[in-house]
Formats: sequence, structure tokens, C-alpha cells
Amino acid sequence: MKGICLLLDLYELTMAQSYFETKKDILATFDLFSRNLPKNRSFFVASGLEDILRYLEDLSFDSESLNFLESQKLFSRGFLDYLSKFKFTGTIFALREGEIFFPNEPIIRVTAPIIEAQIIESYLLNTINLQTTVATKAVRCVLAVKDKGIYDFSLRRTQGFDAGLKAARSSYIAGCKGTSNVLAGKTYKIPIVGTMAHSYVMSFESELEAFSTFSEIFSENSILLLDTYDNLKGLENAILVAKELEKKGKKLKGVRLDSGDLVRLSKKIRRILDKNQLNYVKIFASGNLDEYKIHHLLKQDAPIDDFGVGTNMGVSVDSPYTDVIYKISEVSNKDGQFLPTMKLSRGKVTYPGRKQIYRIKDKDGFYKEDILGLEDEKLEGEPLLFCAMKDGRIIFPFPTLDEIRQYLKENLKRLPLKFKELKRRSIYPVKISPLLQKLTRDLEKALKTRSTRGI
Amino acid sequence: MKGICLLLDLYELTMAQSYFETKKDILATFDLFSRNLPKNRSFFVASGLEDILRYLEDLSFDSESLNFLESQKLFSRGFLDYLSKFKFTGTIFALREGEIFFPNEPIIRVTAPIIEAQIIESYLLNTINLQTTVATKAVRCVLAVKDKGIYDFSLRRTQGFDAGLKAARSSYIAGCKGTSNVLAGKTYKIPIVGTMAHSYVMSFESELEAFSTFSEIFSENSILLLDTYDNLKGLENAILVAKELEKKGKKLKGVRLDSGDLVRLSKKIRRILDKNQLNYVKIFASGNLDEYKIHHLLKQDAPIDDFGVGTNMGVSVDSPYTDVIYKISEVSNKDGQFLPTMKLSRGKVTYPGRKQIYRIKDKDGFYKEDILGLEDEKLEGEPLLFCAMKDGRIIFPFPTLDEIRQYLKENLKRLPLKFKELKRRSIYPVKISPLLQKLTRDLEKALKTRSTRGI
Repeated sequence: MKGICLLLDLYELTMAQSYFETKKDILATFDLFSRNLPKNRSFFVASGLEDILRYLEDLSFDSESLNFLESQKLFSRGFLDYLSKFKFTGTIFALREGEIFFPNEPIIRVTAPIIEAQIIESYLLNTINLQTTVATKAVRCVLAVKDKGIYDFSLRRTQGFDAGLKAARSSYIAGCKGTSNVLAGKTYKIPIVGTMAHSYVMSFESELEAFSTFSEIFSENSILLLDTYDNLKGLENAILVAKELEKKGKKLKGVRLDSGDLVRLSKKIRRILDKNQLNYVKIFASGNLDEYKIHHLLKQDAPIDDFGVGTNMGVSVDSPYTDVIYKISEVSNKDGQFLPTMKLSRGKVTYPGRKQIYRIKDKDGFYKEDILGLEDEKLEGEPLLFCAMKDGRIIFPFPTLDEIRQYLKENLKRLPLKFKELKRRSIYPVKISPLLQKLTRDLEKALKTRSTRGI
Repeated sequence: MKGICLLLDLYELTMAQSYFETKKDILATFDLFSRNLPKNRSFFVASGLEDILRYLEDLSFDSESLNFLESQKLFSRGFLDYLSKFKFTGTIFALREGEIFFPNEPIIRVTAPIIEAQIIESYLLNTINLQTTVATKAVRCVLAVKDKGIYDFSLRRTQGFDAGLKAARSSYIAGCKGTSNVLAGKTYKIPIVGTMAHSYVMSFESELEAFSTFSEIFSENSILLLDTYDNLKGLENAILVAKELEKKGKKLKGVRLDSGDLVRLSKKIRRILDKNQLNYVKIFASGNLDEYKIHHLLKQDAPIDDFGVGTNMGVSVDSPYTDVIYKISEVSNKDGQFLPTMKLSRGKVTYPGRKQIYRIKDKDGFYKEDILGLEDEKLEGEPLLFCAMKDGRIIFPFPTLDEIRQYLKENLKRLPLKFKELKRRSIYPVKISPLLQKLTRDLEKALKTRSTRGI
């Protein structure tokens, strides 16, 4: 996007100018992670890496943006010249999209000249926040539908169009079968689906005329919305239309329920459809659904085939953000040697050093525990952070969305059941390696004196 | 944005094709409104109109988008040709940005060929949802800070970059003094502000070195972050830096508190600053703030001058969407005569006809009640919906953001106090005019037979 170089917080640039003036060759490592799980969640799903890598590879400052910065009378000529030639040259370790992860585990680890690492902060946080939040919510909805289908219908209520696109992408990764969002379908090659609105039915003299007209045009792609006036009368009209289609050798795809008691209604409608030899007509449900309502519906044996889920999933309404943070963990000295660092603020302590996540499985292949350790430690378990970008260049082929989706599906199989419950949180064990524990303790002591030391 | 024509739900297009085949000259009126207030809110603040009008004036279907639609094998050649020449030709009545409004009151009223009115649905809903949700939340934060300053710091946690930009705009309208988001500053001419991050302090050998370096470069623009290691030790360093600046005839702008007990801390820090003749140094507070926490802080007389509010405001975390809906209220017959229509679904009944909102003030100028009536009724009160677009052309000069902000400020003054309380909801009276009541009753009766009528 044009001008995206300015999608940052002003302080990134003021700090960057200070780094430029005083120590632009200093390197640093930053971790992007979250300290806390949102309520009811027991795990996160990583999403957003592809956007981040593309942004980093393309980032540069155009002249219009530079002119704006100059007009602020905050920045030196030298710094603006530096920005005009800016190129991200750092190295990125990251979790794969579709990876399951937990609090305190880095999703993205950046090692770069500190000035570059600082400038990219806001974009990285914003991107991981949105996409991980939605993927984490959507996978809950997907778990709730079990073997039924679920579609993203959130575009009209997402927080802007960028969120609408990313919600479709993240929920497809999570296992949704498609989206109503046409631009997302085009952008990400996600199947697109749709039914009809109440206004469509209301624009005709009669509901039957509305249904007939639609099915004449869209034939086997028709899903008829029943509740504009009355669900059961709507069903009578839908059956007439289905029988008309049968005469042409066609099958009505489905009917949609959008209000009322969906358990009672879906059972009654299924019964009537079956009595009319319309066993093939699917029941589609929508209307303010979320994982809890879907779970309830299926527990009551509601014979619903597909769910359209909008706002609650696309906005992750019950927990609309992930408290992602971006913290420095090491910084190089004048000799180019990396020294670990950490923050001491009460309740906000961070882990120092260049870290890796090691995942340990039990004998049956289920996730048993993770160890957060240092990169150069030899620890049991599979290292999860992989090198996605080296010296500013993407060094791995992006997986397709279907590959990411499949990867997540397999990860979910290996996550023990109790972490997949919808209402109860279980804490997955993330242990700190002995070496990282020792480093943290030692550094804490050393830093407690640092803040009062003179220059 | 390129390809924004496809930012819609597939069903807009399938319905549009059906309209194209059967009745493309039929006109309709749609209302965009919300049935319910989010929790704790007693009113909404309108925001998003400018984006909608620009979108409507520019909307067209480019060939890449048309090729994608063709590839779906759902659409006829004739309909795709129609789209290739698409232009919105309708008329828009709307609430001004910065207008205060209530449930069931249309924010946007569209009268257009039904096919056009249908195609624009998702964009309109998405835009009003985001901007109105954030403006409604932000004005609560602004009310909480009273005569103190408040800034938008939300970019890093908004749901995507579009939300980041619009959050800055809507919160500025609501009364924030600026944003940390540089691109929003450029796009909307909003003042931009910033301080420094913990990582900045941590990248130096000592906190004092970090503070000194920053203040040497940014001089009177410096706000020093105190809590990287320890707030009170941080303050000692900040005082040393302030005294150094004084020697150069400069004044340190402020210090920032980002963790800990902000009441106790701000009082202590104010006392120490004052004892050091640094009465001019401002105290800036941040760290997971929202209107409730700000209210609490100021009630305890915390001497905080400015608040930086991020996620809670920019994402409207406690209520991250407005349940905006887009409902047809009248449709023309073959003779071009408009006939009112409405939806009967249980709990989802709509009001028919072309409506206007009439606002009645008491003798002191305070809002007393609104009447939702028909446009051609002669009713007491000021009509709030104005004609913003006629036959596809914007017909009013966009107000500046500062004008919108001022307009909202004056509206807030006229809103009685009880509706501005943060924790208790009061229901503002929105009455239905006798004529609209009668129309609704009569139509309801007539429609109850419609759904079963044949073609």
C-alpha cells in the first residue's frame, strides 16, 4: 500500500533518529510475544507471517512520506537521507503460520540493526495481533462445528476492510470452508459462498416469487432464506420451488434459518423436508452465532449442516485483541558482541537473550510440554522458531493457504483434548530452561544497579 | 483502493444479478441503523460518512475484478456488462459526522435502483460499524478525562491498518488531541505525538545515558519514560536531564508513567518535581487505560496532565462492534410508485417507509426527545437527516475534522448529563410518530398474508 512506510507510531521514528545520531551500527534482537491468554482460550494460533515478510522485503520511504516527515520539524537532514535509502536488512525467526503456541513464546524474533528493528515495530504488532486473534477465535468455532461446515460471514462488521480480508484468510486457515467476502476470495483463492438477504425477499410481491426468481437464475446454487415473514410458511414456499427444480432435473441446495429457536426449528424443518423427499436439501444456520451457540445447537442434535458465522468470529468479540508486545532481549556492544537485556517494570519482566521454543511430545505424539530456552542450548524437543528471512531476504517458499490449514489441522490433532475445551482454560506447561532461568536471575541483579548509574 | 469494488458479500452480487434479470428499474430505500446500544452506552456518535460518499462517487468495476467474477461461473454476460458500466446514481440522506444518535434511527438512508442499493451494502455497514463504534467509545474516554488531554495510541493493537487509521480519525473527532499514528497524522492532518519505548532505555548502558541522548536531540519535545527499571530512580535521572536542559534555556516536556499504582505514583512524582522547581514538567500516563480507569484516577486526584490510550479505545474492547443493519423500507412498483415494506421475523421487525428523525430540545437547548417519523410528516423538532448525495453526486462540502470535532463538542453540551454517565445506561426517548405507528400496524397485517400468496 502506498505510504505504508508511515504506518508506525511517531516514537519509532524519534527513537530511530536518536539511534541514527548515536549508534546506528548497534544490533539488537526483539521478541514479539504475548504474556497472557485471552479469556477461555488455552492456546494461540499463529497467523500473519506472510504479510510481515512481504512488508519487510518491500519497505522503503517514498518522497511524499519523507516530505511529510520533514514538515514536522523534528527530524534532521541526515536522518531523512538515511530513511530515503532505508532497506530492512535483518533476520527473522518465526513460528510457522498455523503453529499452536502459548504465552511468553516468541511468535516473531527479529535480529537487525536496532534502528531497523525499531521502525518495523508497529506494523509487526498490528499484523500479528489481528491475524492471530482471529485465527485463535476461528479455530474454536471450527472445533465447535465438528464434522459440519462453517463459513466466514463477517465482512459487514469487521473493524474495517483490512480486517475483513484478514478475517477471511485467518478463518480459512482455521478450517472454515469459505467466505462471503468476494475480495478475500479473489485475493487468497478462498471459496466464496452466499445466500440471499431479507431485503431480496421483501422486494418481491410475494416470497414465492422471490424464491422462484432466484432459483430460476441460480438453480442448484440457491439457498433460500426462510424467516423474512415466517419460517414455516417460508419452508412451504421453498418446497414448492424445490419441486419445480426437480422437474428440471435440478436440486435445491439448501434453506437458511436466521432467527428463532434454531434447535426446535431445524428439527421441524428437517422432518418436513424429509417427508417431502427432500433429504438432499441442506439446512444452513446463521444469526449471531459463535462457538458456544454452535456447541449448544449440536449438543441438542440440531440437524444443521452448515453454519454461517459473522461478527463474533471475525471480530473475536469476546476477546478482540491479543496483548502482543515487542521487547528487546539483547543488544550488541561496540565490539559487536551481543549482551542480553531485560525489562524490570513491576509485573512486566521479560526474558533476556536469543531464545528458541522446544516442543516435547509424549510417546503417542501428543504435545507434552514446551521449553523456552536459549537458541544455542542443546535441549530435548523440536525447535519451533525457523529462519524465514535472512539479511532482509525471504528464504523459504510461502506455503499455500491449504497447506497452512492442513498443518494447523494436524497440530490440533496432537494438542491434548483438555486444551481444546471451549469454556475451561487449561494451562499448557511452558517451562523455562535452567540456563535461561540463570541468565534472567543474574541479569536482574545486574540491572537493578544500572538505572542509577551515571553515563 | 484497487479492487475495492469486490469488497462485498457474494450475495450482494447474486441478488443484483437477479434484480438485473427481472427488475433492474425498480427503486428502493434502505436504512442503515442499529437496533441496540452496546453495553454501558447511552448514545452513539455518527462517524464514517465522508468515506462512504467518496466510495459511492468513485465505485466502478475494473476488468481484473470482472474477470474474477466471470471465473466463478455464476454470472451472466449481460450482468457482467452491466457491472462494467456500473455507476452509483442514488440519493443519500445521512446524519452529519459528529451527530449524536440512538437505536432505530437511520444513520444513512439510501434511495437508489435496488440493484445499486444492494451492491453497496457491505461497504456501508463495514465503514459505519468501525468508525461509529470507535467514535462512540472514544467520546466516553474524552468525557472521562474532563479538562485533561488524551491521545490515541492504538495503532499497534487495532484490527488491521484500516482500523488503525480510522481509529485515529474517529478518536480525534471525539476530542482526542492527537495520535501516535504517523500515517493517520498525514492522511487526516491530525497532530502526531510520541514518547519513547522501554527498548530504547534498555539499549543504553544506563537509563541516564538514554534520557540524555534523547533530550539532546529532541530537546523540548522530550517525554521520558520512567518505569523501565524503577519509576522513582527513573525520576531522579529525569530531573538530572531537566536541569541540564535548563542550563541551555530549555524545558523538559514531561515524564511518562506506564505501570504501577498510578494514583500514588503520580502524586509522589508531582511532589518531587515541584520540590525541584520543575512545576512545568508534565506527567503523562499510559498502560492499558480506558474511561473507567481514567475516571478512577482523576477521582483520586491523580495529578496526571495527559493520557495515552491505546487498545481499549481503538478496538472498543468492551464492545467491539455496533450491530448495524441495512434494511429495505420501501420499494417502487412498476408504475414508479414507492410502497413501504418491512420485515416480520421475530424480534427483528423493522419500520417501513421513508423516514426522518426529528429532534426536540427543551427551553434551555437540551435534547429532550426524538421522533422517528415519515419524511413528509410535518412534525415538531429539527430534522437530522440531510441530503448528502443526489443522483450519485456529493452535494455538500465536507466539513474539516476540526469542524466535525467542534460540532460533536456542542452536541455533547446539549445532551443531558445522565446520558453521559460512564457506567449507567439511560434510555433517551425516541418516539415513533403516530403516522409511522399506523403505517407499521397496517403493513404488518397486510404482509402476514403475503408470504403464502402465490406469484
